[in-house]
Amino acid sequence: MTNDRLPRQIAFVLELDKLKAVVRQTLLTDGSRQETDGEHSWHIATMAHVLAEYAPPGTDIGRVTAMLLLHDVVEIDAGDTFIHDEVGALDKEARERAAADRLFGLLPADQRGEFRTLWEEFEAKATAEAIFADALDRMQPILNNFATQGGTWRQHGVSADKVFRLVERIDRGAPALGAYTRELVEEAVRRGYLAAAI
Amino acid sequence: MTNDRLPRQIAFVLELDKLKAVVRQTLLTDGSRQETDGEHSWHIATMAHVLAEYAPPGTDIGRVTAMLLLHDVVEIDAGDTFIHDEVGALDKEARERAAADRLFGLLPADQRGEFRTLWEEFEAKATAEAIFADALDRMQPILNNFATQGGTWRQHGVSADKVFRLVERIDRGAPALGAYTRELVEEAVRRGYLAAAI
Repeated sequence: MTNDRLPRQIAFVLELDKLKAVVRQTLLTDGSRQETDGEHSWHIATMAHVLAEYAPPGTDIGRVTAMLLLHDVVEIDAGDTFIHDEVGALDKEARERAAADRLFGLLPADQRGEFRTLWEEFEAKATAEAIFADALDRMQPILNNFATQGGTWRQHGVSADKVFRLVERIDRGAPALGAYTRELVEEAVRRGYLAAAI
Repeated sequence: MTNDRLPRQIAFVLELDKLKAVVRQTLLTDGSRQETDGEHSWHIATMAHVLAEYAPPGTDIGRVTAMLLLHDVVEIDAGDTFIHDEVGALDKEARERAAADRLFGLLPADQRGEFRTLWEEFEAKATAEAIFADALDRMQPILNNFATQGGTWRQHGVSADKVFRLVERIDRGAPALGAYTRELVEEAVRRGYLAAAI
């Protein structure tokens, strides 16, 4: 162990604190304010444990959890890009890659590689773990939007076709959760929380 | 699978959202506000991955992470009891047990048992996993208090002897992290962030 190993890790731990200051679009279920990235990351990492049985057999839930804990860390530099922000999406990847270079670069080399690999795996959405993690990341805002009678859907005039496309990503990672969420979105349309497809 | 299994799990997931509204004493490292329980739980669960190598060999970091994600959930009902609040400490256990009954009771019976067991294990602080989890739970506020030039130590007039007693709990779970934190607390006293023992 080199002498600067633990100080580097602590520098990263302190840098992580800034994720608590990144505000997302999603409202808390009581509608009182928008959630932070730190809160969102905790919520979906915990969901991975509660809903683990809906992942395909053999999915490594420990790896899913690690991915979810780290997946938004790049937003410390890159900021949160709203899922339906088509302009922000254009340079999102470049901004997030630069952030990953700087943030994971705070760590000792072996961990820099390990954490970067986890984040790249999440972004690529090609493994069972990444696809299940993405399903939870897509499902939680829908639950919160329903709980707040439309929440950010109303605020941003999001229409149902866009939300149904996100539900397809939940289907991919966990069919039972996709089916549940689809019914919830249909009910949201019936209740007027969400505008039908334009 | 009974028909109400997933709805019960989703009811628990929605209830979890309330942990984002429980405010702790600890300030963010930028000093702008106090952190929430959701943010704190995310921070220390992520620390478990960054600092895993300091746990005793054989420690199950996946279990540590699950414990840290869930350890404060009881505060949804019981509220956060400041670590140096001697009056609040008197009935803390009873309040938290009642909260565990209600909150984990939202889940299907098998998960109610599993999550309750995890929480009881954390509270008992007898296994390597629980002792390491406790070390991280004690270390993070000290890091944040140092970063904010005394933070809640100053606000509550906490003296160094109390903080050194918490450092002993970090020693138990991860001696290298205990040693690092002890030096940090000594430096905090030198800088006047923390009053020397009375």
